[in-house]
Amino acid sequence: MTGSLYVVGLGPGAAELQTPQAFSALAEATDIVGYATYVARVPERAGQVRHITDNREELVRARHALSLAASGRRVAVVSSGDAGVFAMASAVFEAIEHGESAWRALDVEVIPGISAMFAAAARIGAPLGHDFCAISLSDNLKPWDVVLARLHAAAAAGFVIALYNPLSKARPWQLGAAFDLLRILLPPTTDIVFATAVSRPDEQIHVATLAEADPARADMRTLVLIGSAATRRIVRDNGGVWLYAPRGAAA
Amino acid sequence: MTGSLYVVGLGPGAAELQTPQAFSALAEATDIVGYATYVARVPERAGQVRHITDNREELVRARHALSLAASGRRVAVVSSGDAGVFAMASAVFEAIEHGESAWRALDVEVIPGISAMFAAAARIGAPLGHDFCAISLSDNLKPWDVVLARLHAAAAAGFVIALYNPLSKARPWQLGAAFDLLRILLPPTTDIVFATAVSRPDEQIHVATLAEADPARADMRTLVLIGSAATRRIVRDNGGVWLYAPRGAAA
Repeated sequence: MTGSLYVVGLGPGAAELQTPQAFSALAEATDIVGYATYVARVPERAGQVRHITDNREELVRARHALSLAASGRRVAVVSSGDAGVFAMASAVFEAIEHGESAWRALDVEVIPGISAMFAAAARIGAPLGHDFCAISLSDNLKPWDVVLARLHAAAAAGFVIALYNPLSKARPWQLGAAFDLLRILLPPTTDIVFATAVSRPDEQIHVATLAEADPARADMRTLVLIGSAATRRIVRDNGGVWLYAPRGAAA
Repeated sequence: MTGSLYVVGLGPGAAELQTPQAFSALAEATDIVGYATYVARVPERAGQVRHITDNREELVRARHALSLAASGRRVAVVSSGDAGVFAMASAVFEAIEHGESAWRALDVEVIPGISAMFAAAARIGAPLGHDFCAISLSDNLKPWDVVLARLHAAAAAGFVIALYNPLSKARPWQLGAAFDLLRILLPPTTDIVFATAVSRPDEQIHVATLAEADPARADMRTLVLIGSAATRRIVRDNGGVWLYAPRGAAA
């Protein structure tokens, strides 16, 4: 008998944003594999084995999960947000391509989730309502020049931009450098959203202009949205704001 | 008493991909507003009023929903996928900005959903595992030149591209024109995915190369994914394929 592997997107944090498909996969699994913070979001279940690994060791974790599945276990690898977006699904397929041939015969199912950028966008209005892109600011696995080139291309072409992995203790300067580049390309009034820990009890949403945006607003749990020249800001009587992209935004 | 407005993303089709938050909002609503195909996905409920409108009349529908909410109703506007991605949330905020001042005081909540591109990506592997963008091919509300410029920028910068609204009876040639441009910019071996009716009983996933990609594979229910030069294809013993983006993909 061969085992199986689910790669499960848990969504941004709140259980009400986790799909029934994800709940089912977690309930059926014999083994849960993941970074401590994400495994902690899965309710403990009698007989289910939990394998907690360091966040930076994605390929090691993927190989471990595949070995367990190949031995006949029903394994769920958990990720925050969507499993396929800067998360574990790529690492799993990378491990399969370069790993044991038996792994290609495994039943692998990727279970999508609510990605951080959509949860963040929903909290502030509809800033992703026209063409947009997602860029990881991490230069752990790709050259920083590539990050800058993609930021440049996206801003110049009028995309709204979602920045993943904006900042960490090991990467303290990248978000500031990204803002420096964007200040050359976009108006100072461009809308910036810092969305931290979206849907969790300590959620914080902060809206700024590009001129005043302070990278120190971000941490590892922050998704940063960069508006386009077409992004509209609606100021409400209570002082709050909504941001949205007009449907035809061409600027 | 003031009413409220939910803008609900129903996900791509299957109930197991709809969030508990969306189920709750639909259960609490006094009125469901939307295009017939999407309203049909909401189970009928005694006492709940259903308002079915034409798909092209987004602003009219948004104003109708806002008027109902302002009269004290608890209204749910429904969209497929994520409500904020080429869907109704932008139209609602556009209507608010240009509409009655009382609408700005309404309690408006956007409820995110599993977007078509993430559902499609999950079915084929992890093709959105590095930097990516989403472009609507509809030129109903933006000039075609803008679509081409964004396709060019995204392909040249190495983004994986998700194409929304690739084709309709009224827009039969746009996907072919997009492929023509991409064939100048990307290798003929570039991976293309046609993902139609994802998660529904008639789901079809077709993988091709850019050289052989036939626009006639797409219809209104299709999401088209364009790989980057870094996209990897894993061929399985059973003849199936997985596509994924290596995590550091810089090409």
